Amino acid sequence: MKIGILGSGQLARMITIAAQPLNIATLSISSDPQDRGNGVTPHFIGSFHNEADREAFCTQVDLLTYETENIPLEIVEACRHNKLIKPSSDILRIAQDRLFEKEEFQNLAIPTTEFYPVSSLEEFAQALIKTGYPAILKTRRFGYDGKGQFIVRQPSEMAQAFESLKNSELILEAFVAFDKEVSLIAVRNSTETRFYRLVENIHQSGILRYSKITSDKADLQNQAERYAEHILKKYDYQGVLTIEFFVKENQLIANEMAPRVHNSGHWTFEGSYTSQFENHIRAILDLPLGSCEASHPYVAMFNFIGTLPEKAQLLKLENVSFHDYAKIPKTDRKLGHITLVENDKKQFEMKCLFLEKFIGFNKIY
Amino acid sequence: MKIGILGSGQLARMITIAAQPLNIATLSISSDPQDRGNGVTPHFIGSFHNEADREAFCTQVDLLTYETENIPLEIVEACRHNKLIKPSSDILRIAQDRLFEKEEFQNLAIPTTEFYPVSSLEEFAQALIKTGYPAILKTRRFGYDGKGQFIVRQPSEMAQAFESLKNSELILEAFVAFDKEVSLIAVRNSTETRFYRLVENIHQSGILRYSKITSDKADLQNQAERYAEHILKKYDYQGVLTIEFFVKENQLIANEMAPRVHNSGHWTFEGSYTSQFENHIRAILDLPLGSCEASHPYVAMFNFIGTLPEKAQLLKLENVSFHDYAKIPKTDRKLGHITLVENDKKQFEMKCLFLEKFIGFNKIY
Repeated sequence: MKIGILGSGQLARMITIAAQPLNIATLSISSDPQDRGNGVTPHFIGSFHNEADREAFCTQVDLLTYETENIPLEIVEACRHNKLIKPSSDILRIAQDRLFEKEEFQNLAIPTTEFYPVSSLEEFAQALIKTGYPAILKTRRFGYDGKGQFIVRQPSEMAQAFESLKNSELILEAFVAFDKEVSLIAVRNSTETRFYRLVENIHQSGILRYSKITSDKADLQNQAERYAEHILKKYDYQGVLTIEFFVKENQLIANEMAPRVHNSGHWTFEGSYTSQFENHIRAILDLPLGSCEASHPYVAMFNFIGTLPEKAQLLKLENVSFHDYAKIPKTDRKLGHITLVENDKKQFEMKCLFLEKFIGFNKIY
Repeated sequence: MKIGILGSGQLARMITIAAQPLNIATLSISSDPQDRGNGVTPHFIGSFHNEADREAFCTQVDLLTYETENIPLEIVEACRHNKLIKPSSDILRIAQDRLFEKEEFQNLAIPTTEFYPVSSLEEFAQALIKTGYPAILKTRRFGYDGKGQFIVRQPSEMAQAFESLKNSELILEAFVAFDKEVSLIAVRNSTETRFYRLVENIHQSGILRYSKITSDKADLQNQAERYAEHILKKYDYQGVLTIEFFVKENQLIANEMAPRVHNSGHWTFEGSYTSQFENHIRAILDLPLGSCEASHPYVAMFNFIGTLPEKAQLLKLENVSFHDYAKIPKTDRKLGHITLVENDKKQFEMKCLFLEKFIGFNKIY
């Protein structure tokens, strides 16, 4: 059994690592013969934009999945003719466009932020009257880690915002003064759905810095699961689906979704019985899903961005696991993460304080 | 960082899988360009018996370790001139010879079975007078999974036993009517030693069928750890060391040791915070060791021997993880294993009963 993965970053890397114990191989595709890929996933040399290469790649694998929603839809649609792709390109079409995504949340009665498509300066001005300030102008597609966004805090910033993003299709979103951000990782095979515990996500400059599983009462978890089920059922979804929510006054407001394994689920490698990566594989192959229960009451995941610390420095902390993505360091690039699991609350809080400082997280930003 | 592994079976495979999150590469060596190896560990094409190949292999790695003690000692000694090897070849020399091993247990005041070297039929007869019947005639070297052994139940079997093994150096061991068999997995870096929970091992026809972590009182665990420390200190040991003991009347009798990761420690992948494989890597690289605590009160590991079941059949059991070693099925070959973890004793016992039957384990043998 061999799974073709579109994309070859750290998510493909971790899917590959999780697939190995099950004796399931993976293959990504790269047009550069010198590409070191992610150091783990083997790759086929060819270009996805070339039909012959794409077909050759597809014949080498049993089915396809993807590690990013930022793949041109026409490429994924073209692959669909050669090979089963899971999750399907129908959900990808929605998830890779902020406008479609928010419209779909509305269709499915999932609360979301106020939003307006923006295709001209006039439309932008009209939309800003409705949202008020601040509001966020975003590209509809290909944004990640806070890229392709502009916070408009006052009318004088309008022109600059539009100028900086005008070459893309845009959406204006009302600013939500949320209490916190959480995400739900759901997984579904053809017959069964399971959910991991909600995690609280802490971002800085648009990039996820760390995640902690929450001790939220059942109502938030239930709300989140109900919303996720609307999407999973509609798309007859197979694989992992991530939904990010704002929490305001104990209500969820859907912000975005990703039809894939997600940074906010990396904790599941050590903090849950079955990792999101293994469950994604089980789901797309329609194998029985594994338990999503947290293995410890306290679990956190901290990202290393831009620089990677010495392993020995962190491994001396009890109950810490280290993941190094084998990447070349670069500003704002995610290079690795650590997971911390604890049974004891005090130990957990002490170590979290240390680790927040260690990763350079600054609460005032 | 790249670790050269002597051997490329399932243990090398699992070392490789555990090394990947830490961005540590592995390399094994094979003289057959068509060798599929274990499906995960990359291999260098060459022969260990050829000096130039051996040197070329050694220049590609930062240090060496081994997955089996059944490597000719002169090969390992030769490598030692090229590259650091951990655990050292001093312990390998002892562990690969049942006579040296038992003599070393005696030297270090670790109780072991009564034993006698056997180099002639006369010596064999003399030894049998001392041990009585039954006794076990074994080859001193290269035995595994019950191979190279002959149980002598009565004088009339003596000639046949000697005839079948006489081409090797031999040892006669007294038969121990043990209450059970347990093993201790210890791990040591240059400064620190840690121990996993004792596991009870159930063999059939000389092959490990399943292991369960024990709820043995502290005294057996303490005894085992004290004995292990004698060896670890004497050899300034770095890596994982496994010692198998018989338990009789709540006392430990050392049976054998393996200077490597061990089948009876496979449960640590899911059943402990840090697997034996990751801790072996941490230890030989002198990184801080990870916690050896069991993650659940009830953990068991079941081997698949000769045939591998359908994954879906077992993955539908909650809390079961599947390991498929990507091997060609063959009688008595270890092809994979599953780990079961539980918080609930009844659930655990029910599933264990099912799994014992499932793997075809027969209590009367």
